[in-house]
Amino acid sequence: MLISHINRIAPPLNMLVSRKYRRENTVIDVGNIQIGGDKIVVMAGPCSVESRQQIIEIAQIVKKARASILRGGAFKPRSSPYSFQGLGEQGLHLLAEAHVVTGLPIVTEVMSPSQVSLVAEYADILQIGARNMQNFPLLCAVGRVRNPVLLKRGIGNTLEELLLAAEYIMSSGNYNVILCERGIRTFESATRFTLDINAIPVLKEMTHLPIIVDPSHAVGKARFVTALARGAIAVGADGLLVEVHPNPEEAISDGEQSLSPQMFATLMNEIECIARMLHRSI
Amino acid sequence: MLISHINRIAPPLNMLVSRKYRRENTVIDVGNIQIGGDKIVVMAGPCSVESRQQIIEIAQIVKKARASILRGGAFKPRSSPYSFQGLGEQGLHLLAEAHVVTGLPIVTEVMSPSQVSLVAEYADILQIGARNMQNFPLLCAVGRVRNPVLLKRGIGNTLEELLLAAEYIMSSGNYNVILCERGIRTFESATRFTLDINAIPVLKEMTHLPIIVDPSHAVGKARFVTALARGAIAVGADGLLVEVHPNPEEAISDGEQSLSPQMFATLMNEIECIARMLHRSI
Amino acid sequence: MLISHINRIAPPLNMLVSRKYRRENTVIDVGNIQIGGDKIVVMAGPCSVESRQQIIEIAQIVKKARASILRGGAFKPRSSPYSFQGLGEQGLHLLAEAHVVTGLPIVTEVMSPSQVSLVAEYADILQIGARNMQNFPLLCAVGRVRNPVLLKRGIGNTLEELLLAAEYIMSSGNYNVILCERGIRTFESATRFTLDINAIPVLKEMTHLPIIVDPSHAVGKARFVTALARGAIAVGADGLLVEVHPNPEEAISDGEQSLSPQMFATLMNEIECIARMLHRSI
Amino acid sequence: MLISHINRIAPPLNMLVSRKYRRENTVIDVGNIQIGGDKIVVMAGPCSVESRQQIIEIAQIVKKARASILRGGAFKPRSSPYSFQGLGEQGLHLLAEAHVVTGLPIVTEVMSPSQVSLVAEYADILQIGARNMQNFPLLCAVGRVRNPVLLKRGIGNTLEELLLAAEYIMSSGNYNVILCERGIRTFESATRFTLDINAIPVLKEMTHLPIIVDPSHAVGKARFVTALARGAIAVGADGLLVEVHPNPEEAISDGEQSLSPQMFATLMNEIECIARMLHRSI
Repeated sequence: MLISHINRIAPPLNMLVSRKYRRENTVIDVGNIQIGGDKIVVMAGPCSVESRQQIIEIAQIVKKARASILRGGAFKPRSSPYSFQGLGEQGLHLLAEAHVVTGLPIVTEVMSPSQVSLVAEYADILQIGARNMQNFPLLCAVGRVRNPVLLKRGIGNTLEELLLAAEYIMSSGNYNVILCERGIRTFESATRFTLDINAIPVLKEMTHLPIIVDPSHAVGKARFVTALARGAIAVGADGLLVEVHPNPEEAISDGEQSLSPQMFATLMNEIECIARMLHRSI
Repeated sequence: MLISHINRIAPPLNMLVSRKYRRENTVIDVGNIQIGGDKIVVMAGPCSVESRQQIIEIAQIVKKARASILRGGAFKPRSSPYSFQGLGEQGLHLLAEAHVVTGLPIVTEVMSPSQVSLVAEYADILQIGARNMQNFPLLCAVGRVRNPVLLKRGIGNTLEELLLAAEYIMSSGNYNVILCERGIRTFESATRFTLDINAIPVLKEMTHLPIIVDPSHAVGKARFVTALARGAIAVGADGLLVEVHPNPEEAISDGEQSLSPQMFATLMNEIECIARMLHRSI
Repeated sequence: MLISHINRIAPPLNMLVSRKYRRENTVIDVGNIQIGGDKIVVMAGPCSVESRQQIIEIAQIVKKARASILRGGAFKPRSSPYSFQGLGEQGLHLLAEAHVVTGLPIVTEVMSPSQVSLVAEYADILQIGARNMQNFPLLCAVGRVRNPVLLKRGIGNTLEELLLAAEYIMSSGNYNVILCERGIRTFESATRFTLDINAIPVLKEMTHLPIIVDPSHAVGKARFVTALARGAIAVGADGLLVEVHPNPEEAISDGEQSLSPQMFATLMNEIECIARMLHRSI
Repeated sequence: MLISHINRIAPPLNMLVSRKYRRENTVIDVGNIQIGGDKIVVMAGPCSVESRQQIIEIAQIVKKARASILRGGAFKPRSSPYSFQGLGEQGLHLLAEAHVVTGLPIVTEVMSPSQVSLVAEYADILQIGARNMQNFPLLCAVGRVRNPVLLKRGIGNTLEELLLAAEYIMSSGNYNVILCERGIRTFESATRFTLDINAIPVLKEMTHLPIIVDPSHAVGKARFVTALARGAIAVGADGLLVEVHPNPEEAISDGEQSLSPQMFATLMNEIECIARMLHRSI
């Protein structure tokens, strides 16, 4: 049989991620926010933390538009070594200030096992980026802290592999894992990636973990993000991860896919209507 | 430059499909139905016409659930020569009977240029299947009749190629083309295909033609179809093409992805709510 | 089971294409050429027949370099309706002239069932292009004539589907089918397509039919074609389909991937060495 | 312009990996072996180091068959946390013993920045696995030691991204980088991955770094590996990475794709003939 290697899509009964291991949805507490419950959780903010003024301004903007969590990159994985790599630890300090000013919990990326304890001091949620979905020492390291983990799907990885990556975190002791679909690589070149919207109902059947969608990376153009956000909530996602920048055209990274404050306010209003139809709120 | 071949994504100004050629949405009349207008159009029915009783029963069921158009295959393209190939001309007669009984317009597939005039007598809308998206003699042949054409995207074809295929039909004289996203082939094996939901807003920007979504083929499992239908309408699709069967487990083809009458009624109710939010109706 | 649809990779015992149906390699006679035997068969010529002078000149050139068969398009499937569509029947006449002058058998594409009898008069081998691999009425039509058929793999089609397409031809009565791997669509954008070199040994195990490779379309750049041709012969392909043009920079179509006469002579010398190593000849 | 993100395939002039920065091929010394020179370098051995007896036995076998370098995993990245994760540091000791017995240099994988100094003591070449191709802290860490680095292409990564990953290593100070094509993820399910053979000539034009091929992972079935190895050498690869096991059916990992000693001896004889034709040796 030539294809036996892909025959194990359903996680075995005994896997911690499996809906068979736990029937009810996992709901994760972050401050007074609940991820995976009735409320749709929107995490918004810039690709990179660029300056005190930028991150505080955008934190206030997304809070006003009813986002629940502030995103912002301090340690940035970039394809080229010559691209801006983030402000590093200074970026974490600025995120902490934005938290003090707005009260918004923080989600930010961690890139190596040795950074985990530092980032875990500042971040409410630790993000594992798509490139690190199968960085197993990193998965084990975030599995040994208490902070919830936002695990992004790799661009070339199957849903089965995403669940096995979550299993690394859970089997290391941390059960607070949020899955994130952010687009996969296909032949289509009109968009940056292809949002795998099928993944939402399929994952909901396979696992009890919350699932959010990152429409910004999935399509790569700001003007298409709101439509995809509506679609993600309509199929049943538990939340969104969205890039918003006070002046997208001046962003140091990912400006092309960042929403302006006004576009983000529209997005929030539109997904609120969809959420209500599904007996959820934002 | 290694990638010059994919540099022409935006259709040239003078292309008939282009939003630059025609700014307003094209609205296509089929009987008293309008495709591409404010109303969401749902085309529903079995994969294959199997018998008089089956097609008339399902026509009545989908009509009652407020579908606008009856789908059903008479000439069936099947990967294997040993699979059921459809009832052929007899299937067309049965579709005509279902039309008489219910008043629903008919959409059915045409597979070769020499069949076009026959199928055009019975069908209100001629369907070009995904496998024939670049069957250029067939595109030219349907371009020479008056019936609207439902053009499905090939599983390995880009959006640019889809628009160029539509251009073949339009430049042959038939401007009534409806585009259909039905899933593309990717590495993900948990679903039959990957619904390219990005395609909806991207196509809406590139072209004035109506765009519908086939969630049944895109995901391949009936229990996921309704969620995807909601997502498709939420992102802005003008309609749906959905497989429904009176007894899915007894269907001769595609039973696994066919909705039962009850599931279809639920789908219609759910997309109605989404449509209303977008100031559309069903 | 989510992936049952891809569980049937091994053709059933009773399929005509299967190595289980026929253990020995099928060898196909075209004039005094044998395809699928010990000799490597190279089919070469321009993408399109452009003029009497062009096709006769290139026929003499490829013959001198020891190609066995002349390729050239008369009916050209092109993604855009505004691209050159080939000389049509006149192109067939010119191919016939080139045959008279050089004695080389002709392979050329047929695009619709109604063209089959015409093209079959002029062509020694009927080519089914990648876009028509699942054009089932066309497969059945070429299955009802005597000419050998060169069946190209669709860019989005699996090996299983390629074999099922061949089965359409064989089950219609024509057992002389030559399979052709010509690159599949993947995320990699540095080359036009990705040559699926794995396909050669896998197909050799699954089927008794001869298998050739088209490196010109697979990579899309003339300067890489010779290396890939060496690779194709080294893994066990029975032949090649190569685009050669007297003046590639002036070609009406596919100039970028066409070899100059000199490059083609080099290719032939290099694959001869590889062939000899495998106890084959050219 | 929708596709600006993929417009930068050619590395800029000033990149260290670029053929424009350095015209001549980079040749890397490992003991008295040269990688990237006239000699084809074959790295062979088991997927995982399993025991002293196993690794010493296989080291002697591959040396006798004229492999130049011993491969073997001590730290194993596995998709599931419940699969065998390698013998760890003990595996490194056993590799060192195999080196003492046979004199073969060792290539083995390193999975996190904190392991680099340990693995660098035992390994002649540090392997970065496909899953870690964009683990940037790890790339920087191996960029700060002297050992040559074998960088495997990620299954969802473009050639441009592979070169940018190599640039991370080089810009950190280590110019001894060997690139490895090991198959990419595509829709084809008949093989484990799709060997991107196009990558070899394309990379040879873009970069001066040596390029080897891993046919074992690319196809996933032992019986197809030798054919692909011939193809890789014929297109111009500088070497191979091949899984060989004394008893493939008893291997703890990757047994299905491991060659038996006898199959490996055949592989070496066949690629020697191809190498000679290209004026190279093994």
